[in-house]
Amino acid sequence: MGTDEDNKGGSIEDLTERLRSFNSTRDWEQFHSPRNLLLALVGEVGELSSLLQWTSDAQVDAWLDKPKNRSAWSSELADVFSYLLQLAAATEIDLADVLQVKLAENERRYPVELARGSSAKYDELNGQ
Amino acid sequence: MGTDEDNKGGSIEDLTERLRSFNSTRDWEQFHSPRNLLLALVGEVGELSSLLQWTSDAQVDAWLDKPKNRSAWSSELADVFSYLLQLAAATEIDLADVLQVKLAENERRYPVELARGSSAKYDELNGQ
Amino acid sequence: MGTDEDNKGGSIEDLTERLRSFNSTRDWEQFHSPRNLLLALVGEVGELSSLLQWTSDAQVDAWLDKPKNRSAWSSELADVFSYLLQLAAATEIDLADVLQVKLAENERRYPVELARGSSAKYDELNGQ
Amino acid sequence: MGTDEDNKGGSIEDLTERLRSFNSTRDWEQFHSPRNLLLALVGEVGELSSLLQWTSDAQVDAWLDKPKNRSAWSSELADVFSYLLQLAAATEIDLADVLQVKLAENERRYPVELARGSSAKYDELNGQ
Repeated sequence: MGTDEDNKGGSIEDLTERLRSFNSTRDWEQFHSPRNLLLALVGEVGELSSLLQWTSDAQVDAWLDKPKNRSAWSSELADVFSYLLQLAAATEIDLADVLQVKLAENERRYPVELARGSSAKYDELNGQ
Repeated sequence: MGTDEDNKGGSIEDLTERLRSFNSTRDWEQFHSPRNLLLALVGEVGELSSLLQWTSDAQVDAWLDKPKNRSAWSSELADVFSYLLQLAAATEIDLADVLQVKLAENERRYPVELARGSSAKYDELNGQ
Repeated sequence: MGTDEDNKGGSIEDLTERLRSFNSTRDWEQFHSPRNLLLALVGEVGELSSLLQWTSDAQVDAWLDKPKNRSAWSSELADVFSYLLQLAAATEIDLADVLQVKLAENERRYPVELARGSSAKYDELNGQ
Repeated sequence: MGTDEDNKGGSIEDLTERLRSFNSTRDWEQFHSPRNLLLALVGEVGELSSLLQWTSDAQVDAWLDKPKNRSAWSSELADVFSYLLQLAAATEIDLADVLQVKLAENERRYPVELARGSSAKYDELNGQ
């Protein structure tokens, strides 16, 4: 994957590689310690949150229907995703792997018959 | 993709579909409004942050080397990724698409010759 | 203010002093760098958010009316406040002072006649 | 406390009252539901985090010594404090009270002889 131009795929690996290449070309790895990337992720989640801070639950759909809002929302989601991918790469975590492990775990923790229609945490499911 | 068993792939689409199926089987879509998922994402980013709150920059690598810590870190990254995928799906955003748009934008905003070795934001790059 | 027992006041200064004394007695200042306290604050805001993640706008009042929920909410607000006070103290910021400066600034930025009933940011107020 | 001019005190109660008056005059209570204020708080904590995202632990003190940075830091701390006060008021929580309760609780949970010099959580203290 020699240049940015060669790599336009949209898989997790492609996107991670493209971010790595982008950062490497600009000599930015020096800034990308785990805690720096974590704080950057927090910052982007904050920007995402601020987009909906004055938009009540009932207003969200109409808000998202406006192209200007939708574009801002997309852009912040991209920023969150970008820092999550970089944070995972910097700490050598395979996001797809760990999410698959988590999903298998949650399938055990939240059996359909107990969890159906309930927002309780798994450790409170039996007590209901 | 009839059952959970049929879908064990690790692409963004596979993982999103598996989360959708998991939620649908448990009748959990009713809880997954955009602002609910956003607050859940904030909660998971908070848990991720709390893992490193007493671990200084200099201690992070050693911390991550311990299997117990690494496992906790992986698990929280998976939770963050899970809610990000669900939030994107609930608002009909293609994360790979919007990140590719963002990357193209950043390649313009941060020309290599100006941005090399600098942590300045793009709108402050010319002033340096 | 010799012992914890001597200081039971509820002013910002009293609470800050009591936190300082609590930490000093336990030799915890070593953990309280600005970025550590910031990540701890993020963690507590995450816990606060997770309390309301499955509680829609319409359900919040009823949720807060239950003593168990109200107690959890109070406890998390206290944690957020605690780390905010410690972060301000660690970086030598007087929270009351800076909030008073901010309030005076916002009184200028948001003139009553322009801002009444609008959730627009100050830099978008004239354009309405 | 008739007008903004009459109330320049810096206590928690004074600041809370001044925020209430500021919002009331602008008819902004309609926007200040608990979840709206919570997302606004998350947004401000995100802005605070972004200020230190590329500043390593070792660089924080020098960063804060620059007046421009210090001013930005103060301003974001004020914003966080402002939304915390408004969130507490909107949910009828007395921040000083709940922090005093928390402090008394932590004095029991973290006995000096066990907690000295340790960053372990209280439920892991005995196990060390």
